[in-house]
Parts: sequence; structure tokens; C-alpha cells
Amino acid sequence: MASMIFSDCSSSTTARLLPLRCQKLRHSFNSLPFFHRVSLPLTSSRPSLPTLYLQAHSSSTFVSAKMATESTAKVIDGKHVAKQIREEIGVEIARMKEAIGIVPGLAVILVGDRKDSATYVRNKKKACEAVGINSLEVCLPENSTEQEVLNSITKFNEDPSVHGILVQLPLPSHMNEEKILNAVGIEKDVDGFHPLNIGRLAMRGRDPLFVPCTPKGCIELLHRYGIQIKGKKAVVIGRSNIVGMPAALLLQREDATVTIVHSRTNNPEGIIKEADIIISAVGQANMVRGSWIKPGAVIIDVGINPVEDSESPRGYRLVGDVCYEEVAKVASAITPVPGGVGPMTIAMLLSNTLSSAKRIHNFD
Amino acid sequence: MASMIFSDCSSSTTARLLPLRCQKLRHSFNSLPFFHRVSLPLTSSRPSLPTLYLQAHSSSTFVSAKMATESTAKVIDGKHVAKQIREEIGVEIARMKEAIGIVPGLAVILVGDRKDSATYVRNKKKACEAVGINSLEVCLPENSTEQEVLNSITKFNEDPSVHGILVQLPLPSHMNEEKILNAVGIEKDVDGFHPLNIGRLAMRGRDPLFVPCTPKGCIELLHRYGIQIKGKKAVVIGRSNIVGMPAALLLQREDATVTIVHSRTNNPEGIIKEADIIISAVGQANMVRGSWIKPGAVIIDVGINPVEDSESPRGYRLVGDVCYEEVAKVASAITPVPGGVGPMTIAMLLSNTLSSAKRIHNFD
Repeated sequence: MASMIFSDCSSSTTARLLPLRCQKLRHSFNSLPFFHRVSLPLTSSRPSLPTLYLQAHSSSTFVSAKMATESTAKVIDGKHVAKQIREEIGVEIARMKEAIGIVPGLAVILVGDRKDSATYVRNKKKACEAVGINSLEVCLPENSTEQEVLNSITKFNEDPSVHGILVQLPLPSHMNEEKILNAVGIEKDVDGFHPLNIGRLAMRGRDPLFVPCTPKGCIELLHRYGIQIKGKKAVVIGRSNIVGMPAALLLQREDATVTIVHSRTNNPEGIIKEADIIISAVGQANMVRGSWIKPGAVIIDVGINPVEDSESPRGYRLVGDVCYEEVAKVASAITPVPGGVGPMTIAMLLSNTLSSAKRIHNFD
Repeated sequence: MASMIFSDCSSSTTARLLPLRCQKLRHSFNSLPFFHRVSLPLTSSRPSLPTLYLQAHSSSTFVSAKMATESTAKVIDGKHVAKQIREEIGVEIARMKEAIGIVPGLAVILVGDRKDSATYVRNKKKACEAVGINSLEVCLPENSTEQEVLNSITKFNEDPSVHGILVQLPLPSHMNEEKILNAVGIEKDVDGFHPLNIGRLAMRGRDPLFVPCTPKGCIELLHRYGIQIKGKKAVVIGRSNIVGMPAALLLQREDATVTIVHSRTNNPEGIIKEADIIISAVGQANMVRGSWIKPGAVIIDVGINPVEDSESPRGYRLVGDVCYEEVAKVASAITPVPGGVGPMTIAMLLSNTLSSAKRIHNFD
């Protein structure tokens, strides 16, 4: 079992970041109740579950392996790639509009008044507008009934100007999330979380209508940086329905040999150390250390974790699951946080919405 | 890459078994066109793809690690467990009949005149009768239209006395298998291969209506022999939709750390050697050698491969994917072939049919 201390890996400090809700200094994977949680990119329809960390100044008693003193890893620039993709999508949308007069439409259903959810929805709207996707929005009050949400979904399912439907999560606790998500027509489920899509993703010889946005963004980054997946040992850390599990299925489809490391895994470091490609999606600040990494491995860090930072005007900053400064010295390529996977998620959402419109209108 | 020779592992001979379709004596995983194939238990609705092997007398130049001279592994007796399960099912069916007057019904659709398919269907019928399941059968000629098959499925979907529907594969080549299988109502898909079932199997917090019979049988064997899965390293060899992939998902649901080894995997032996639990489902006679096994590992051998045997009255005998005599000396427990996973598949089919009838009639 791994003992872990959440060390700040910045070169300017040896500060240790401790989760507020966590009393002990050391934990095993098994004892971490939040290991299952995934802090998603801020643009996702699945909100991050923010964990604030206290900064405790003391040196880590744990870690770390011999490393080069200089960072050698190539930075996988998700911000840049996402911008490129958004431009490509914009061109395609213009071409479709000119050819058949159709503009893709994305509908978002927001229930309640969570500030973070409102921010995600606003970001999606802006991104849609920037590429020429028509953005529709329904905001329902916190005390809405399940039936009212279902009615909105039905309306969008039937609306031919809508090609993608997102229900912003989390829903109020009195609602059955599974029932509501399953009501989204499979051909408009641009989030790709419908079990039918996941099933098709898992099966050889079948194709999902949509691939979930964040894992799709991870694989797209590997492709755009020319990183070979076929035949490589890949480890996915975390097995959530929205990132870890579909990411593993995608890597498997691309002929990697995939292992999922999770909260019940014995000796996770040992398994991670053998990987050529690592996708980490657990929502644990700086959990993956430099000593866990095989030299030359490629790291995709999905975690976006807020940690307290008195020097930041907001009082916090965002870090990944991966101890960047340590790992960048060992890996051959790595995504930064922020600016790695985060911007890719919304780009993939736009891409899925465009694909949906193309499929529905039979436009190539 | 693994170089492999398909050695006969019987203690009475050093014979080497060469696949008829295979010209070279040595192969890498990558060059094996049939690595994807799975020879399923004879009772399955998915027929085995029989590969006949020529017996070439020469000693293996390859293998083998230091092993004890005596077999130490416990034999996981699938025949015995399957018998127990069939008895339990029989008791439950009698109880349901007495309580609510309902008898579970399984419908099988057979298209064409393949002898092996006819045998599988006959075996299922016999097994149904033995436990009290009502067995229905439709045999359609080879030159039937897709629509005729779909009509039969619709009839059974609507028939309240039918709780499970199986379409015996392979279908004639002029038919779209995916379209036909998808027509089976999800609530009667006792094979569990519908993508919606597979998706639910993959997702945390979701439950499939049915778990595919062969992988379900593998896990049931582990359970009945008290073999712990949680926290163990498990390797599934083969990634077929009907065994390997769902077996991996099942192990994952039980908190194993799972790796799927497949035809594109580099150094498969090295990965297999680290496993506490191995499920092999590739359809390669005697492929997994004793030297590939960690001492004390548990082996579930799904392969049922016919190899030529002049001493057998039938001219062939059945062997697993695993070189039994070698592996039994290293493993702590192992399924034999035949008599391991094979009998479990049909027991799980009966179990799924019973569960379906219970669910449809809301009987606990």
C-alpha cells in the first residue's frame, strides 16, 4: 500500500498540502475516502468537487527517486491544441452552414443556482458562440420536479435545431440522476455517458455515437503530439464513469495494454512505474510523484485540484494529480495544470456537437 | 514479444501441437492471426471456432522454469460446481412454480444446419428440461431472410411465457448479426451481450440486467472456491466481446487491479507472471506455460481447443489455453479442460433465465 503525503512540488517551497477533511498525515490508498472523486476540468458538465488544501510547512518524509536536476519533458500544450481544434470546428461549421444551411445547436439544462455550475454553463455558451454553434439554455429553479426536467429534455429531444443536450450536474438531491440522464436521446447525448455509448465503446467492432469529452481530449492530445499508443503499457489512475473507465476503454481500443489503478490497488506505485503512458484522473493534488514514473513515460494529468495559496489573489491555485516539477524531470512529455486536459474537454464537446449535427443531417 | 511453440503438456508425450493453418514453428503474439479467436465452451450460444492441430513429434526448444515435480494446485471442479448450481436452480424453479404458477421459458433461434450449432442447441434444451425451464426452439433454413429471423425475435419478445431469448451464432453470412442481436429485447437478453448491458457492466453504480454467461461462470468459480478477488492483480488474456472484455469488467467491479493482455501486448509473459488471478480466453492450445505463472496464482482457463489425438476414439481431444501439467505445478488453483469453465456457461445461462423470470414476475 502506498503511503502518501500531498507535497507541494513547486521549486520555491517544500510546503506540504493537506486536505482539510483529512486528519492524518499519511494515508494508504484504501483509507482515502476521496480517491474516487475526480476534479474535472472546469469546462466539463460534470463539475469538479473542490477540495481545499491547507498548506503545512514541513518537509516531506517521503519520496523521492534520483532525478535529473532539469525538467526534460515536452509540455503537452492543451490550450494550444484546443485552440487549433476550435478553429477547425469553426471552419467546418461555416462549411456546413454554407452547404446545407444548418447550424449545430447545443442545449444545456441547468437546475438550481450553484455558482460553479452557472460558471461552467456560461463558459460552454461562450465557447459555442465563438465557433458558431447555436447555444440554448434552460434554467430551472432548485425546487423543480423531476418531471419538469424530463419535460425540458423531451422538448430538446424533439427539437430538430438541437443536436446535443447536456444536463449540468450535479442535480438537486431529490432527483434521480440516472433516470434524467437516460432520458436524453442517445443520438443527442454529446456527453457520451449513456450506458449504450459506454457499451459500444467497450465492444470490439462497435462504435459509440459519442466518446465522453474528457477522455476523448486525453487521447486527442496523444494523437496530436504523435505519441504512439499501440503496444504501449498504459495505466489509468482512477476508474470513474466519466474519465478513468472510458479513458481505459479508449486506450484499449487503440491497442495499448491497459491497467486501471484504483483505491483498492495494492502497490500502485509499482504498477504506475511500469507504464509508458499514464492518465491520472483521481482528483488528488500532487499525488503522483516523480519516483513513481518510468523515465520517458508520457503523462496526461486530468486532475484539477484547488490548493490554498496565500500569494494568489484568489487565495488558491490549481494543481494536477501529478507532482509536476518532479515528474517533468523524468517523463518525456506531460500536460500542465491548468492548460493541459482542461481546455480539451470543451473543445471535444464542441466537436461532439458538430459530429452530431453532421450525422443527423447526413453531411460529410 | 513472446516466441511460442504449442507444446503438448501431457506427461505421456513431448509432442508438439501445431495448428494446421500455421506454417511456422514459432510465432510472436503479433503474428498470430487467430489470437483474437476464442474457443468457447461447447454449451455456449457462441460456437467455438475449432482449430485442428497436427501433432509433430519433437521436443520443445523453449520453456520451462524450475518447477516442483508434483502438481500442487487445487483443481477447480467446474463440473461439480455447475451441478450444484443446476440443483439450486431446480429448487428455485419449483418454488416459483408452486408460489406463482410461473415456469421460466428460454427460446432459442437456430438458423441453418450447422452440426455444431445443432449440438449446442440440443445441449441447452436438455439442460433446461433437467431444471424445469420450458424450452422453445425455432429452426429456420439457411436461406431465410433477415426479416424472418427478426419476426421470430419479435414473437418471442412479445411472448409472456418466454423470459430469455438466444440467437445461436454464427448466423448465415448474408445476415447482419449486430442488427439481429440488437432486436432481442434487453429484458430477455440472457446472453448479456447487448451493448446496454455491457455499458452498465462497465459503469460504477449501474447494474446490468444480465452478465454474459461464460465470464459470469469464471467469477462464480472464484467465489465458490473462496478465492479473494478484491485487491488482487488480475490478468485477462484475450479481449473478446463475449469473454475477455466482460471478464475484465467483472474483475474490476470486484476491486481487482485488472490488465487485459492481447495480441498487441508486448512481453505478455512478463505481465502474466505478475498476476494473482489469470483468466485465459484466447483459444490457443497450451499457450500459457508454467514459466509464465507466479507461484500460487489462480488460473481460470476458458479455452477449449481440439487437438489431434490418435489414441482418442474421436481422433482428437480437448485442451485449454493453459499448459495444464506445467501450470498445475506452480499455481495454487486451476480449472481443468474439459470440466472447468465449460459446464459453468450453461449453468449461468439457466441462472440468467431464472433471474429474468423472477424479475419479470417480481418474484424474490
